[in-house]
Amino acid sequence: MVNTTRVQRAQARMRQQGIDAYLILTHDDYVYFFGEDRYQPRAIIPGEGVPIVVTFTGEEAEVRASLGVEDVRVFGSVGQQIKDVVQVMRQMRGTQQKLTIGVQMWFSTPAFLLNLFQKANPHVTVVDIAPVMDELRMVKDAAEVALMQRAADIAAIGMETAVRTLEPGVTENDVAAEVEYAMRKAGGHGVATPVFVNSGIRSGWLHGTATDKPIESGDLVVLDLVPRYKGYCANLCRAFVIGAPTAKQQELFDTYKRAQAAGITALKPGARMRDIDAAAKQVFEEAGYGAFYVAGISHSIGLGFEETPAPTIHPGDSGMQIREGMTVTVGHPVLSVPGIGGVRLEDTFHIASGEAKPLTNFPTAFRIV
Amino acid sequence: MVNTTRVQRAQARMRQQGIDAYLILTHDDYVYFFGEDRYQPRAIIPGEGVPIVVTFTGEEAEVRASLGVEDVRVFGSVGQQIKDVVQVMRQMRGTQQKLTIGVQMWFSTPAFLLNLFQKANPHVTVVDIAPVMDELRMVKDAAEVALMQRAADIAAIGMETAVRTLEPGVTENDVAAEVEYAMRKAGGHGVATPVFVNSGIRSGWLHGTATDKPIESGDLVVLDLVPRYKGYCANLCRAFVIGAPTAKQQELFDTYKRAQAAGITALKPGARMRDIDAAAKQVFEEAGYGAFYVAGISHSIGLGFEETPAPTIHPGDSGMQIREGMTVTVGHPVLSVPGIGGVRLEDTFHIASGEAKPLTNFPTAFRIV
Repeated sequence: MVNTTRVQRAQARMRQQGIDAYLILTHDDYVYFFGEDRYQPRAIIPGEGVPIVVTFTGEEAEVRASLGVEDVRVFGSVGQQIKDVVQVMRQMRGTQQKLTIGVQMWFSTPAFLLNLFQKANPHVTVVDIAPVMDELRMVKDAAEVALMQRAADIAAIGMETAVRTLEPGVTENDVAAEVEYAMRKAGGHGVATPVFVNSGIRSGWLHGTATDKPIESGDLVVLDLVPRYKGYCANLCRAFVIGAPTAKQQELFDTYKRAQAAGITALKPGARMRDIDAAAKQVFEEAGYGAFYVAGISHSIGLGFEETPAPTIHPGDSGMQIREGMTVTVGHPVLSVPGIGGVRLEDTFHIASGEAKPLTNFPTAFRIV
Repeated sequence: MVNTTRVQRAQARMRQQGIDAYLILTHDDYVYFFGEDRYQPRAIIPGEGVPIVVTFTGEEAEVRASLGVEDVRVFGSVGQQIKDVVQVMRQMRGTQQKLTIGVQMWFSTPAFLLNLFQKANPHVTVVDIAPVMDELRMVKDAAEVALMQRAADIAAIGMETAVRTLEPGVTENDVAAEVEYAMRKAGGHGVATPVFVNSGIRSGWLHGTATDKPIESGDLVVLDLVPRYKGYCANLCRAFVIGAPTAKQQELFDTYKRAQAAGITALKPGARMRDIDAAAKQVFEEAGYGAFYVAGISHSIGLGFEETPAPTIHPGDSGMQIREGMTVTVGHPVLSVPGIGGVRLEDTFHIASGEAKPLTNFPTAFRIV
């Protein structure tokens, strides 16, 4: 169902910023306003009045019933969908010289779609909607936190499954299969990033995937899980060693664990994102691993896996402050040392009553017996 | 390992078209040239000389060993990654006034990344690389077809699992869990689009997803699977009814089956994409469902789920001709009739020896007992 309060809050901010309408093309904001997702989310929120949902003819009845929106425009082809949007833009412009339309400029907005929109609507100035939406989405309400808690519980079930599955001879992809399945069966609605099972030399990767490589005795393995529940994400990452760790492997793990703990201690209202980084980096430096520190140990999370503030993507966000009600992770980048491998630990927190309360709960045992 | 033949073929086309270098930012072309994937694929193919791979410090050794590339630039932060690319652009430009760089303008290239690149490199003219890459990727070699056959076999295992799982009371998400798991266990590397389990009123959706809605007796259910194997996709879609179909449900199904068959008959070298549409549409019209025909019954498939020619996305591709060696699907759009629901059937074909040979093999039984 359309969340009228959220629509009105967005509209007030749009009017302040001189944005005539917000063209929604991404899943996160579609879910934020309408409470459910579509494969091709398309809607327009005008500065005033009711939201317009653009959908396929065959989905009209169901969209009207489930979203509770009055203005539904239907299309039966790609061409007609474009015409519908152009027509709405024309009506909105009326006698105005120019129309200012906000769009998300994040990863999920394809370059060609924005070009197409711009060509089809030459009188439209496209601006980034982030200054409107970031402010609203950064602080989560109780309903959002409850969904994230559910996602975090699902992540823990996935990680528990990984621990049970990891053994020499099993491939990374086999582990991913079991984890993905366990998270779905626990009620999860897929994942925001593919399940990462990075083992051996691949433990040192910045990101990851799951390949046909078999897990070997002595391997470092980094498991990173970002399940979704009703659109909302939680992020849980753990590092393991298969069998007895070497002294160096243990040192990396202990260093990361202390660095994450230092980051968590720094995570409180008023702190800047860079303060969390500084706290973690200091631990790396004291342990002699300062040169391997990758900036961006913390990012906000919610409907987006990484959302503002996300210095992990936009280094400029590192000056932003933590606020009550935010949900953020600590432990994002890998500590990757050539010749040894990589480790990392990541958890998701909710800032409540001035404290960082963990949403993800899972032990940090390193050794897989 | 880097595929030198493919690199050289691309370079020859780039030089013909006045493109100084191709900046790879998408998974499909990264896999096409280097044979494996990264979470953040970043490489530059200059008009002449060896490809440059840009990767994280901790991945250097593994990238050198597994890709067999000489020129690897490493970064330790987002900022440094941008600087590396800017430096390469500067070196390439030398004393030239302007540098012309090709980029994929498809769904997976985010608008902000292209803007960032353009701002950081003011002397660069960005052009669409599609005229270079489409020609190469459209016709598959034997190795590519073998990977797609494997993906098609995995899709059949997924569909068989769906048939066994579908029964009243089971949720769409439960079915998706079982299907996803079976495809991974069969060796699949995840999916190109989420597993669609569209039941009841949702069967009429243009696209889909899997929700917590329980499957009910009498429901139409559309299952659409696009598993990947080593980056390559195959697409298999089937429609089912839970229990005895109504006369109208059966009529929709029979109409779609005949329309798909007509499309498959039209699928041969020299035919235009629109001829396949015309053949299928005629069946819809004869059955009285012409008004519900959504254009775009066929699209090319390979490293991309929908790749050129894809009139399903770019209506202009409907004039393109089928060639020997192409891999295309028939059966893409839903036949969605308000008050009844939707059905569709989709299969993947390889054009070989002048014929459309099915890669996907799965019965079209409608009724789930």
